[in-house]
Amino acid sequence: MNEQALLHMPESNYCFATGRNRLKLRLRMQRGEQVEAVKVIYGCKYDYSTIRKEKELPLRYRDRLYDYYEVELLLEDVRLAYIFQITFDGRQHYYSEDGLTSTYDFEQGYYNFFQVPYLNEADFFPVVEWMKSAVFYQIFIDRFYQGNKAKDTSYINMKWGDKPTPYRFAGGDLQGITQKLDYIKGLGANAIYLTPVFSSPSNHKYDIIDYKIIDPQFGNEEALKELVASAHKRGMRVVLDAVFNHAGSQLMQFQDVLQKGRKSPYHGWFLIRGDKPTAQPLNYECFGACTYMPKLNTSNPEVEKFLLDIACHYIEEYDIDGWRLDVSDEISHHFWRNFRREVKMRKPDCVIIGENWHNAYPFLMGDQYDSIMNYSFTKAALDYFAFQVFEADDYAHKLNSILMRNSQMVNEMMLNLLDSHDTFRFYTQVKKDKNKVLAALAVMVCFVGAPCIYYGTEIPMEGGYDPDSRRTFDWNEANHDLGFREKVKELLELRKEKIIREGEIKIYAEDGLLILERFQETDRMVLYYNGSNHEWSREYFVKDMTVSAENNVENQILKPGGFVILKSLGE
Amino acid sequence: MNEQALLHMPESNYCFATGRNRLKLRLRMQRGEQVEAVKVIYGCKYDYSTIRKEKELPLRYRDRLYDYYEVELLLEDVRLAYIFQITFDGRQHYYSEDGLTSTYDFEQGYYNFFQVPYLNEADFFPVVEWMKSAVFYQIFIDRFYQGNKAKDTSYINMKWGDKPTPYRFAGGDLQGITQKLDYIKGLGANAIYLTPVFSSPSNHKYDIIDYKIIDPQFGNEEALKELVASAHKRGMRVVLDAVFNHAGSQLMQFQDVLQKGRKSPYHGWFLIRGDKPTAQPLNYECFGACTYMPKLNTSNPEVEKFLLDIACHYIEEYDIDGWRLDVSDEISHHFWRNFRREVKMRKPDCVIIGENWHNAYPFLMGDQYDSIMNYSFTKAALDYFAFQVFEADDYAHKLNSILMRNSQMVNEMMLNLLDSHDTFRFYTQVKKDKNKVLAALAVMVCFVGAPCIYYGTEIPMEGGYDPDSRRTFDWNEANHDLGFREKVKELLELRKEKIIREGEIKIYAEDGLLILERFQETDRMVLYYNGSNHEWSREYFVKDMTVSAENNVENQILKPGGFVILKSLGE
Repeated sequence: MNEQALLHMPESNYCFATGRNRLKLRLRMQRGEQVEAVKVIYGCKYDYSTIRKEKELPLRYRDRLYDYYEVELLLEDVRLAYIFQITFDGRQHYYSEDGLTSTYDFEQGYYNFFQVPYLNEADFFPVVEWMKSAVFYQIFIDRFYQGNKAKDTSYINMKWGDKPTPYRFAGGDLQGITQKLDYIKGLGANAIYLTPVFSSPSNHKYDIIDYKIIDPQFGNEEALKELVASAHKRGMRVVLDAVFNHAGSQLMQFQDVLQKGRKSPYHGWFLIRGDKPTAQPLNYECFGACTYMPKLNTSNPEVEKFLLDIACHYIEEYDIDGWRLDVSDEISHHFWRNFRREVKMRKPDCVIIGENWHNAYPFLMGDQYDSIMNYSFTKAALDYFAFQVFEADDYAHKLNSILMRNSQMVNEMMLNLLDSHDTFRFYTQVKKDKNKVLAALAVMVCFVGAPCIYYGTEIPMEGGYDPDSRRTFDWNEANHDLGFREKVKELLELRKEKIIREGEIKIYAEDGLLILERFQETDRMVLYYNGSNHEWSREYFVKDMTVSAENNVENQILKPGGFVILKSLGE
Repeated sequence: MNEQALLHMPESNYCFATGRNRLKLRLRMQRGEQVEAVKVIYGCKYDYSTIRKEKELPLRYRDRLYDYYEVELLLEDVRLAYIFQITFDGRQHYYSEDGLTSTYDFEQGYYNFFQVPYLNEADFFPVVEWMKSAVFYQIFIDRFYQGNKAKDTSYINMKWGDKPTPYRFAGGDLQGITQKLDYIKGLGANAIYLTPVFSSPSNHKYDIIDYKIIDPQFGNEEALKELVASAHKRGMRVVLDAVFNHAGSQLMQFQDVLQKGRKSPYHGWFLIRGDKPTAQPLNYECFGACTYMPKLNTSNPEVEKFLLDIACHYIEEYDIDGWRLDVSDEISHHFWRNFRREVKMRKPDCVIIGENWHNAYPFLMGDQYDSIMNYSFTKAALDYFAFQVFEADDYAHKLNSILMRNSQMVNEMMLNLLDSHDTFRFYTQVKKDKNKVLAALAVMVCFVGAPCIYYGTEIPMEGGYDPDSRRTFDWNEANHDLGFREKVKELLELRKEKIIREGEIKIYAEDGLLILERFQETDRMVLYYNGSNHEWSREYFVKDMTVSAENNVENQILKPGGFVILKSLGE
């Protein structure tokens, strides 16, 4: 056995409470290790030397390097001791905190068993329930739709439909979104995630001047209230963008420091080496190399209070349903712990979604965010569908690997996406192959977590890197591919299926087919994507199941690049 | 290469800030993997595709399964991206968030490099400076020394020197400790850790009636103030025992619930299934199976406030220097986060030491405790010196493995111990072999972290499991082994050496010799313990070094079971 591949860690993504007295355990081993059985031997830590139970762990996930066994325990006593028993080469082996051994002394167990000393209610990490059936539509506001025709339009300096540049304004606003809510809902989305709405000189508004003022280009306080109320009326949720890592250089507090230097009460709000901030030579910290976006010193308790007040203000006054956290990985864990406490105290089901492009486990242990924008999922889809560096089995392995990074609760709240305002559009990345877009969406819809589509995906819209990914939405339906849009809608509607929201997942590949199964008790749903070069008879898959969605199937043949999603409900 | 053995995790015990712009990185590989070089390629995450530096990681630790490479980076920009370059079989390999690859595309790095997005001051986990040179003396108060001869002694029901039973009282008190501070200081200890001092009916006082009252058997509020002040006058620290997981059943609040059931405002302070708590059948949660110790519901904000108030009270009113946390692993992370915030706000160098017998990483990430009672260290010493299930190399491997569980900061604050009121005495475990006790103490003193000796170790005292480990201290010096005591003192004094407090550590075994090196720049200190069956010439070790301490050396011969500690200071 490859002993070095073995991994289990109590109180981690390998061991987490799924309920008051429920616990999920994962055990990692080398991929393909020939084991005969994997069991957990568990009991109350105070009686463990005498009273124990056993439960088998089935193999549930496989990635390039590892197999992952997983089981859920229902505990009578929430003070748990456990070890794993692995049957291998016809003999028993034991895996404890001291590693793999051929015998185990239960009398001395208190020194080296694995344990969850007590499942405390205060540590429980609940899933925001509505996220399980959420389908997000992300909107870059200036480019979506101009609803307020009566506003001062003197700032608009591009024609709707022109290619965007970094400094052009097209006129989209909150009223426009409110007017298009039925359109969005009609697509199968039930949540919107908006790029920033606060007062700012740019079209993207990530350089904020005043966090309590809605940018007049986008509307006003009433317009945001109306948007949220209209969304709620339709059973839709609204998530705003919290830009707390940095502000715009026109923020009153930064302007005060520019004038007064160290004499300003706000000098400590920023990270300045010297008296007054200067861009040449640069003597203050900023976002990336953007001198117009000075970094906020969130380690300063005054700044923390200022920002937490804003976070609470939009919950209390506007009843928003979530915060997406811009550049959240550059802000301290300390800050996000306090953020979570304040936000959840006011609205427990207000979702907190970090912008972390990498494995964000240190932020996702239950005390900070709920989830992140799942850019690792994005990259896997690109590697398979666009860059072709993955075969179907590589893609399956990567998807499993991503699932194993976090607890089930985090996975169920993930914001899965194929593209955003910060990437190329997926449609452009796959060289406008609509079948690939639909297949990637099918995987995203069947995966664990909330799908998020970027505005215009459904038309579909093209776009390269920023600013090209922020083109204006073409509202002339004559230019839309309505067949494509219907297929997108059909896929998004699948998120209403209980089995897709709640079922267990299994992902693997066979003969170039990517297979994604969801199952719950005797119910089952399966996606087959033909990633091979040859055709497959549709009947080969369907058997006694019914078709929920399919694409690129002709004359009962699943063509290369096509998929079929099948469902069977148990007796 | 055993790819499955590779491990690195950003923001973990594999990657932690050691200063405002200093970061330590660890990379784990299979033990004995034949690699030619291991480097980290690092830079600012925003320029990483173009500007990068390299630094080599030396092999620093080895355990049974793995080798650990470690390096410290000094950062100009605290927004770090990095990957590892491993030269193997004459070729370069790259290890990133996506695993091991034979090439690496730095242009696409933002998707899969490792990163520490920003080293935030608010997340920095500082070492409590005095812990680096602390030597603890743990006292079970009833059995140490009766200082107050004038008190009501009617509760005393055993003669000093009689064998203890669970319900006997011998009369030790706080005044006794105050009077013996010079004795303790004379041994080389500069900190005392006391079992609980609060009002309680038992001799151990883990079943507390009133957290704000010092038990009259032990003294009163003045006696504790005098003890702390006398200790501080001598440059000594005082750590108290916080019993917050459970109270005694005579706690006023529990008594109120016993009388009034659900009508009591304190019903929610405990975990009761039903109206009034009953022991037969047991309908409330308690510590272990001890019905006289009802578990406190620390998830209840009122209980949290009550306990945090106590934690702060003894800092503010008595100026204590630390809290040892009883059964702390059964209390929520949520609670300990708040505990840390309140305690450190009042006294930043108040040390927080959990009682976790197991790998306690989830509590030791900087937001909860500073360290734990290092019972894994205890177990390793027992396995080597007492149970002989370890050879010298197993012991070295286990010590390295323990060091790799946590960050350097946690290791430097560890409370290392050979025994306590909750174990057999080490002297008894090694069948009264004084050479073994001295050797184990030598390892503990040279190891990273604060040594803690249990009262009477220096005499030495015998003792089996509780209550036998809690015998009365024999103050008749005629019965002490003064030569042994001098050797203990000589060892404890070594903690004053800068290199032992601050130096790097390397532990390994050769030919049955256990070798523990400490080094800092050109200074060096080495412990050689002869764990083999044969004799070694003392000169073989000494070379150009000077002897700091030794035992079981005769006629220039290091005998089996003997050790020598050598020092050489660079030019």
